[in-house]
Amino acid sequence: MLSVSIPPDATAPEWQVSQWFNTPIALDLAALRGKVVVVHAFQMLCPGCVSHGIPQAERIHRIFSNEGVAVIGLHTVFEHHAAMQPVSLEAFLHEYRITHPVGVDLPVPGQSLPATMQRYRMQGTPTLILIDRAGRLRLQHFGRLDDLVAGAEIMRLAAEEPGS
Amino acid sequence: MLSVSIPPDATAPEWQVSQWFNTPIALDLAALRGKVVVVHAFQMLCPGCVSHGIPQAERIHRIFSNEGVAVIGLHTVFEHHAAMQPVSLEAFLHEYRITHPVGVDLPVPGQSLPATMQRYRMQGTPTLILIDRAGRLRLQHFGRLDDLVAGAEIMRLAAEEPGS
Amino acid sequence: MLSVSIPPDATAPEWQVSQWFNTPIALDLAALRGKVVVVHAFQMLCPGCVSHGIPQAERIHRIFSNEGVAVIGLHTVFEHHAAMQPVSLEAFLHEYRITHPVGVDLPVPGQSLPATMQRYRMQGTPTLILIDRAGRLRLQHFGRLDDLVAGAEIMRLAAEEPGS
Amino acid sequence: MLSVSIPPDATAPEWQVSQWFNTPIALDLAALRGKVVVVHAFQMLCPGCVSHGIPQAERIHRIFSNEGVAVIGLHTVFEHHAAMQPVSLEAFLHEYRITHPVGVDLPVPGQSLPATMQRYRMQGTPTLILIDRAGRLRLQHFGRLDDLVAGAEIMRLAAEEPGS
Repeated sequence: MLSVSIPPDATAPEWQVSQWFNTPIALDLAALRGKVVVVHAFQMLCPGCVSHGIPQAERIHRIFSNEGVAVIGLHTVFEHHAAMQPVSLEAFLHEYRITHPVGVDLPVPGQSLPATMQRYRMQGTPTLILIDRAGRLRLQHFGRLDDLVAGAEIMRLAAEEPGS
Repeated sequence: MLSVSIPPDATAPEWQVSQWFNTPIALDLAALRGKVVVVHAFQMLCPGCVSHGIPQAERIHRIFSNEGVAVIGLHTVFEHHAAMQPVSLEAFLHEYRITHPVGVDLPVPGQSLPATMQRYRMQGTPTLILIDRAGRLRLQHFGRLDDLVAGAEIMRLAAEEPGS
Repeated sequence: MLSVSIPPDATAPEWQVSQWFNTPIALDLAALRGKVVVVHAFQMLCPGCVSHGIPQAERIHRIFSNEGVAVIGLHTVFEHHAAMQPVSLEAFLHEYRITHPVGVDLPVPGQSLPATMQRYRMQGTPTLILIDRAGRLRLQHFGRLDDLVAGAEIMRLAAEEPGS
Repeated sequence: MLSVSIPPDATAPEWQVSQWFNTPIALDLAALRGKVVVVHAFQMLCPGCVSHGIPQAERIHRIFSNEGVAVIGLHTVFEHHAAMQPVSLEAFLHEYRITHPVGVDLPVPGQSLPATMQRYRMQGTPTLILIDRAGRLRLQHFGRLDDLVAGAEIMRLAAEEPGS
């Protein structure tokens, strides 16, 4: 279903993060191998992210933590850079009571789009990305994704055997 | 996860229906064997059903129809019986644009609870029931079920091999 | 503002009601003279009424009762007549915890539209009608009316001197 | 009604603003004498402001502009000062399509609360303040105010004679 899938043999590229929140250690895909990884790319001043994408990611984090699912927020600032510096992001995460790990997508000097956003060829925010237990990119969706669909697609990957 | 599961070896009891809407033929569990069956028990004058359960069931029907999932509404009237006769239900389904099959749970003379509701020992409405491809009762939830959880639990069953 | 007003010198026609709920006595406009009267015309199986119009009317009832404002629900059944008989309406009002007085608009034999709906030339449901302290029809709005506008228009009339 | 009123003879204190957005000129209460003034105090990273207070203020601005009502946003930063500098506020107003005038409440060196917030003895954000045509403070409400009530209280003042 759902028409948002991509070819199943693509290895997910590593993210590049300049700063982390809500985690004592830096996180990378290698360390999360064996888990389903949900990456939620957002901007703190993107209205669709604030009303839908970010609370959805936080609920996924809380509901699926015991199912071998890791949720990673990625602050992919591609406009209003001065307005969304890490000091503002930190207050935002505090006020909205976000508890899942969030990384700041690495700025690229002289360019609007940060590094990870470029690697994944994201079209904007919010974008939801699903990576399976074997590290393959399985779904990338720009815009609002229905909760029923999000829950189903996460479980589709969570139900797969780790070695499959 | 999710603490709403039940023992996985229970065979789902057949429903008993006095009248069907939105289907040209009577439906039974035997005919749906091989599919994941989502049963949504509701009353047309139950506010929580109208605001949450019924639209959720309709969206499940539209989103998962290509995934081998069948959605069955069950009108389990256990109070205000005179107020929710089939003539009223029919208008309700028309006005709310419900397209999935809906059966009227068989009234039991002299008793408040209709037949299927008794068999499943339902506590009230809305109740969501999931039956796997092999006909086993896998989940029964009374009250509001989060869309993320509902989507995940449906996919958990949809991802199983038919013969497992 | 608001472009939904009507000529301010029209006397509001009396409603015709076959049965009342939530009031020990029959109500008429003459008895309510001196109050601002909010009439909310609805059908119990009209989705826009259930999700917006009816709860709005109930909140008006609760918020403005000390401001000399009377809220009257009017069940104006013009379709699916057999589905929305008073026995069903009564259960509906109970389940949705409606506490303001509701009258059943008088059916007219051989016609779809009930009597009051015809007199007011209503176009459908929900319709909100405002009648000032002097009994004049001041606003009639078919469809959803924003709460800010509804609150303002009610207060516009409530702030007028009774004898003006 | 409504229990949020204050003594009707209090003159509203002037606001103190360090920077304006959405207006070509600085605004003060004297220049708005004769209008009903709605002041909406908020912080851009206050979740209750973003979900309720700010969109409510914008809708008041759009609905009541022809009724002699002026809406003024006031960015009253009293926490996370570094996170909510004017450069971030400007992007916020752009992304959320806020069109009504917004002033930055004057920071007070060495203190958390900005100047206008102190003068009005505000308890937090969001706070809605109503000032009548004669410049008197008539209502000050901390927290979420129902749209029906907000619309009514604005019209209560708008319906008063300018010279009363």
